[in-house]
Amino acid sequence: MRLRNIKNATQIIESDKHFLKNPEQYKGKFKSLFKSENLEIEIGSGKGNFIISKAKSNPNINYIAIEKYPSVLVGLIKKLNDLDLPNLKVISYDAALINDIFENEVDKVYLNFSDPWPKKSHAKRRLTHENFLKEYDKIFKTESYIEMKTDNYKLFSYSLVSLSQYGYKLEYVSLNLHEENIENHMTEYEKKFSSLGQNIYKVIAKKNKNTRN
Amino acid sequence: MRLRNIKNATQIIESDKHFLKNPEQYKGKFKSLFKSENLEIEIGSGKGNFIISKAKSNPNINYIAIEKYPSVLVGLIKKLNDLDLPNLKVISYDAALINDIFENEVDKVYLNFSDPWPKKSHAKRRLTHENFLKEYDKIFKTESYIEMKTDNYKLFSYSLVSLSQYGYKLEYVSLNLHEENIENHMTEYEKKFSSLGQNIYKVIAKKNKNTRN
Repeated sequence: MRLRNIKNATQIIESDKHFLKNPEQYKGKFKSLFKSENLEIEIGSGKGNFIISKAKSNPNINYIAIEKYPSVLVGLIKKLNDLDLPNLKVISYDAALINDIFENEVDKVYLNFSDPWPKKSHAKRRLTHENFLKEYDKIFKTESYIEMKTDNYKLFSYSLVSLSQYGYKLEYVSLNLHEENIENHMTEYEKKFSSLGQNIYKVIAKKNKNTRN
Repeated sequence: MRLRNIKNATQIIESDKHFLKNPEQYKGKFKSLFKSENLEIEIGSGKGNFIISKAKSNPNINYIAIEKYPSVLVGLIKKLNDLDLPNLKVISYDAALINDIFENEVDKVYLNFSDPWPKKSHAKRRLTHENFLKEYDKIFKTESYIEMKTDNYKLFSYSLVSLSQYGYKLEYVSLNLHEENIENHMTEYEKKFSSLGQNIYKVIAKKNKNTRN
């Protein structure tokens, strides 16, 4: 995503009640923020269409939107200003440091339209690279559950192999999500790419937290 | 594949030196037919372009082409008439009965452009259905190794999930094989579908023979 520099971005996002400052303080006790225990997070929430739609549709599941860039989060926060979603919190954080904020408490990770980092030399930056999968292991409760969507077929095939090699089993794969008759919460990118005629790919993968290979 | 009834099909295929009649007699001892031990089989060889190309390129690997229908095999046999490939044998057999001809002796199974059986009620007929994966288990030596190609993205996504759920790990996935810079032996269907602009999908999956789930 090309970033625009937005003046006072940090100030804008910190003013919203859904935003969590210093999220490290909740590590291992995020459930104290919510009425129920089920916790699902989206890494790279962008402008938030997906996670806001999820939170509205599932009031008994708690969601945390994670986005690195405050200038992107401004878009998400603006959508939240008129809403009151007690089951949604927003964090500005780097995915590589996710272990600093969660510990044994996440039920599901969503990765939607992540940066494909197409160059082989950048493979380690892909959010489904083994190094990231290792990091995620520590944040999950008992089962590791990843749901990923992308329009990039190279990132998709890479991710299928990476997840499988790491010990995940594929529970669901679609190479043309929008023709399937299942519930789907669209992201901004998804709407755009789909309207251009691009296929949307989805995988749901699962493993026992402590199983590997 | 729509079948034409070819007169004397059985007679034609049985006249070729590459054809094996009554293959059950070689069960567990196929290596006696060849100079080396490495044995790879293709289930559903059609007109044989793939397996003949493989056999020519890899004289130290032994191949067995399996095709149910004699009327289809006629096309393969005609291509072999002028050739002498000591590392290729041809069998007319039903994939569902593959345990009657092989036992602990196969290194790799190729499934190329298998019938997708699109109706859900026909899922059990797909060559990557759990029931077939069970059958294949018994024919492999120590590692189960499946290489599959198809132009049908629904069969492909189905197969990825089925293989993964059964305990296979995905070693390689391509959603656009013909743009990859790797060795590829084309089947008749592959040439045709690719020339129509269709993507070709490929997966290589592996597991320890006796591991499951």
